Amino acid sequence: MSSIKIALVGIGKIAIDQHLPALAHNADFELVALVSRSIAEQQEILERYPQARPFHDMDELLASGIAVDAVSLCVPPTVRYSLAVQALEAGLDVLLEKPPGRGVAEVESLRKIAEKQQRTLFASWHSRHAEQVENARVWLADKTPRAMTIEWREDVRFWHPEQEWVWEAGGMGVFDPAINAFSIATLLLPEGFYFTEAQLDIPGNRQQPIAATLKGALSGTHGGSVEVTLDWQKTGDPLWQIDITTDQGVMTLEEGGAHLVIDGKRADGSASPGEYPGLYQHFAELVKRNVLDVDARPLTLVADALMMGNRREVAEFHW
Amino acid sequence: MSSIKIALVGIGKIAIDQHLPALAHNADFELVALVSRSIAEQQEILERYPQARPFHDMDELLASGIAVDAVSLCVPPTVRYSLAVQALEAGLDVLLEKPPGRGVAEVESLRKIAEKQQRTLFASWHSRHAEQVENARVWLADKTPRAMTIEWREDVRFWHPEQEWVWEAGGMGVFDPAINAFSIATLLLPEGFYFTEAQLDIPGNRQQPIAATLKGALSGTHGGSVEVTLDWQKTGDPLWQIDITTDQGVMTLEEGGAHLVIDGKRADGSASPGEYPGLYQHFAELVKRNVLDVDARPLTLVADALMMGNRREVAEFHW
Repeated sequence: MSSIKIALVGIGKIAIDQHLPALAHNADFELVALVSRSIAEQQEILERYPQARPFHDMDELLASGIAVDAVSLCVPPTVRYSLAVQALEAGLDVLLEKPPGRGVAEVESLRKIAEKQQRTLFASWHSRHAEQVENARVWLADKTPRAMTIEWREDVRFWHPEQEWVWEAGGMGVFDPAINAFSIATLLLPEGFYFTEAQLDIPGNRQQPIAATLKGALSGTHGGSVEVTLDWQKTGDPLWQIDITTDQGVMTLEEGGAHLVIDGKRADGSASPGEYPGLYQHFAELVKRNVLDVDARPLTLVADALMMGNRREVAEFHW
Repeated sequence: MSSIKIALVGIGKIAIDQHLPALAHNADFELVALVSRSIAEQQEILERYPQARPFHDMDELLASGIAVDAVSLCVPPTVRYSLAVQALEAGLDVLLEKPPGRGVAEVESLRKIAEKQQRTLFASWHSRHAEQVENARVWLADKTPRAMTIEWREDVRFWHPEQEWVWEAGGMGVFDPAINAFSIATLLLPEGFYFTEAQLDIPGNRQQPIAATLKGALSGTHGGSVEVTLDWQKTGDPLWQIDITTDQGVMTLEEGGAHLVIDGKRADGSASPGEYPGLYQHFAELVKRNVLDVDARPLTLVADALMMGNRREVAEFHW
């Protein structure tokens, strides 16, 4: 198969920092277009990727008649749905940055449209491609999980400086990073898990939680406990850790999936190429096989937590 | 096939008012057991259904060795999951009152367990069996929907007098009745719809919304608008209405599905036997065919709305 001609739509920070370098190092893809409302002002990017043609928006791209097989959508969730439908109906394969939609029903709607159009739709979760996640998955595959704890603590001021949207309706607050943990945990535990109660700490001057503790269970009658601690005010190094106790030892994924520890000993195996390179490797496979990968479970877990959560007012948050 | 031997678990108001009369008039079922922590004090019920044996809990029922094919769970959502798993693993078919779980992930977990056990699991939505819902579905089946509005207004003081749980974490507030509308709308529109924004009015002394307005779209590129108005302070008769504009006229379901209006004219067709009788008729068909009916979409729509909703504080609520 020849390379997949891809257009990158939405040339913001994540596209520049992650998507463009990952595409540049993947021979399966040929970057043919850069689509952005402000593309005319992004001269530096255009010079760095001279083979890619600039377009103002998706309409202009589709009207141009250039050969394109796929689009990668790095636009905000509010406009992602209509662009994805437009691309799918034009016969293109589609990659969505996380989260794949504003709500779970929107994602399920997109899945149906992709199935009808028989196109590849990849609702990507970059954390699933972190260096040791696949090794963790393989280690767990022949073991029985007994309990899981997730600790996800980072500094919102470092990761989202002055970004007011994280506190607004739909911004998800501390669940914006937590969804990365949920994307890994749902991959590691195919039988699944669910939440039964949630405590949400909401700053008095904000709408979204700055911290949360969740309790739940692994799927099944004697499913074992699930405990999640989320905190958006940890300064210094982030703590992004998942521990799964099994019938044959304890697995720990550290640093968001970068390192694997078994029974307290570092056990890193052969590393994946990294989050975004791995993500595009997976997208290339999906496109070649013409199949979908649309897993809304990480978003479902966020929605469940926010639906069932007990809200407690805590100190105001100021940047 | 002989009749389905069924045990009713959780003998509270909904079981007494709806489930027991519906079962008494359905020849497909034989009520063999009544299961309740307080069954010893429920002499009046036991006398009314003398063929049903009383049990304190599910353990006692399963240990008794009496012949039983299915259980209907009318217990609160907090204990529903473990009882459902216990029943499925004992080889019984299971009917769940609405909502089928505390969260969407819990329902999906139950679905997987039922599939593994090859048992029938019916996550029931009683409003789907209202008198004219099936006629509405048939009328819509060959038309293209262009827009939908839902108005669901009732008096919380009448329907949930002094029930504090409706305002607490997991209680859902005005989405407790709204989920009935969503269960009908998802049945009528198999292509689906989704919400894109929500305004939630939260009384200053409560956690859950007393009113809400939602905006969304029918699935697809030119999906048409979806508008939902929810209000829990309408005194007098409730207003439970769904309007769907199509390419061939406007359909209105009034009174929660009891009446059908096409282009402004009453158009009731042959009525279903009513909500709970219809629900048990459907369960009997599912059991005979040994298939599942687990549709979490109504709960997903509630979770989506609560996840993306903009919260506005409104006047305190007192009973």
